[in-house]
Amino acid sequence: MNTNRQWLLAKRPHGVVNKENFDYAEKPIPEPGEGEVLVRNLYLSFDPTQRGWMEDRESYLPPVQLGEPMRAGSVGQVTESNHPEFAKGDLVQTTGGWQDFVIAAPGQGPMGLSKVPDRISPEMMMSVLGITGLTAYWGLLDLGEPRAGETVLVSGAAGATGSVAGQIAKIKGCRVVGIAGGSEKCQWLKDELGFDDVIDYKNENVDERISETCPHKVDVFFDNVGGDILEAALNHINMKARVVLCGGISAYNATEPVPGPVNLMNLVIMRARMEGFIVIDYMDRSEIAVEELLGWIMSGELKYQIDLQEGFENIPDTLNRLFTGKNLGKQLLKIADPV
Amino acid sequence: MNTNRQWLLAKRPHGVVNKENFDYAEKPIPEPGEGEVLVRNLYLSFDPTQRGWMEDRESYLPPVQLGEPMRAGSVGQVTESNHPEFAKGDLVQTTGGWQDFVIAAPGQGPMGLSKVPDRISPEMMMSVLGITGLTAYWGLLDLGEPRAGETVLVSGAAGATGSVAGQIAKIKGCRVVGIAGGSEKCQWLKDELGFDDVIDYKNENVDERISETCPHKVDVFFDNVGGDILEAALNHINMKARVVLCGGISAYNATEPVPGPVNLMNLVIMRARMEGFIVIDYMDRSEIAVEELLGWIMSGELKYQIDLQEGFENIPDTLNRLFTGKNLGKQLLKIADPV
Repeated sequence: MNTNRQWLLAKRPHGVVNKENFDYAEKPIPEPGEGEVLVRNLYLSFDPTQRGWMEDRESYLPPVQLGEPMRAGSVGQVTESNHPEFAKGDLVQTTGGWQDFVIAAPGQGPMGLSKVPDRISPEMMMSVLGITGLTAYWGLLDLGEPRAGETVLVSGAAGATGSVAGQIAKIKGCRVVGIAGGSEKCQWLKDELGFDDVIDYKNENVDERISETCPHKVDVFFDNVGGDILEAALNHINMKARVVLCGGISAYNATEPVPGPVNLMNLVIMRARMEGFIVIDYMDRSEIAVEELLGWIMSGELKYQIDLQEGFENIPDTLNRLFTGKNLGKQLLKIADPV
Repeated sequence: MNTNRQWLLAKRPHGVVNKENFDYAEKPIPEPGEGEVLVRNLYLSFDPTQRGWMEDRESYLPPVQLGEPMRAGSVGQVTESNHPEFAKGDLVQTTGGWQDFVIAAPGQGPMGLSKVPDRISPEMMMSVLGITGLTAYWGLLDLGEPRAGETVLVSGAAGATGSVAGQIAKIKGCRVVGIAGGSEKCQWLKDELGFDDVIDYKNENVDERISETCPHKVDVFFDNVGGDILEAALNHINMKARVVLCGGISAYNATEPVPGPVNLMNLVIMRARMEGFIVIDYMDRSEIAVEELLGWIMSGELKYQIDLQEGFENIPDTLNRLFTGKNLGKQLLKIADPV
């Protein structure tokens, strides 16, 4: 391969993202400079937060610029190295973007550059031990502070982050209820992941079902969705509840501002807390989390699920799987096999 | 006086409260039982939260029942005592309600029964050293955690709670900006209370003015108002900001559910926290707060302002002063003088 295939951000989206937002391009393969390596992307990560990176507004990362490859986390293989700690053939994690090749270096870009340890597969590194798993870990434990016997409600529960957050809450001895879309996802949460109960937001009244499934109310709400689901959850929070704001996927494709919940005053009445976080703030403590998560995986207490798509041409469509709810577990796409 | 004048809750309000929500009644003066005292109310307290007590819904206190005297904090004088720790003539604080006389005992009702210390005037006891002052103290310090050099924004800043919260933030070395309605209140905050800057929400664009007056963004937002003001403030929160949800007076008279802010996701982007509280949870620590507040009053660092109305017949109208913004500082009404 002599060219670097890319999907460039061509037009900022208004509402749902589609192929028109991207241009396909073929560029020369770049040359790594001093201290840099050239990485060939093997797997790309798809995450709801990427939708926000496409908007021209201030956020926790700068917007992707028009004409730039779309930003995405990746696992790839070093094909040329000018950095003493990385050798050709090393599997690495970086911010590869929607392209075959990327120049990377430790400390550069949101994800820097780090080796994928031998004992960890690329799929694991990009899911339960990667950004989404770490998001679940720190969000639930550091902000949610679940205690044994408490009730933890998780929205987006069949997603890469929600499914891990719910399982960690189970490990911590909590009653765990998941909100997901469709009977297949709900069944999976109950049968495979051991959630105590589930709410199918596509077919059930979420407010009523929270009341039924959380008889002692909700102590921790781990929210990936926002909107009506957040409002329903706030109706059922317990005294001193913790609402962990992880994401708000319900509004990511909105073309108009989406009003917040009408019942924020329940935070006052219940002396409750709502708190947002971004996992990149916890990156210096990743090892602690990875070791603990790995232990739970080994003991069979923590399962993870990959939704693996393939083909460079399918990259733009794959992002939309997150918003149409097609993915079960972590959404990845494979561009190439390691050599 | 042989009768106990009362204003009874006659009809639950829909929107703005008016005289039709109350019935005037004259009842026999009640007899205190064993361990109880009879208190003659001298001053009644008016607080925005009382509007919520009139609604038939679960909250941090049970609703006032139809046919009962409207609930309100009071300072009164013991006229008969069957309790060893209280003597006739003692000035006491209790939940007197909208009536001349009330039966009270320690541990009974939301405010129990406690003596007003000799060195403290009834007005002080019902404002800066009472519920509203303690609300400012604990909300700002325990939830807001202001640090010297940070920017603290206060809404409802000319109210009984906001004015104290802002002054405590000044004492803690913060830059303090207050939001209030009208030039008179704004002038008072700047000239008398030493706020660094003020925003007149009735005559200025709050969002723009926060941007101007808080060049380093908002580290602590002490919110008594909610609604559009909360939304504007969330546009300007700093990293790791703390939003202290004290009240939401903008929605208390609403007849339809009021949507929350469209920008809750800023809590995620800025890793910020929004937390509610109720001051009654801090009552076992009141002495700590009262001592510190009293010290600041003595040193001249903390000022308080009373808006004193008079006359039993004016009780229902006085509640509305809070919602029309007529009050400057703590709203009280005097029914009688001590004997």
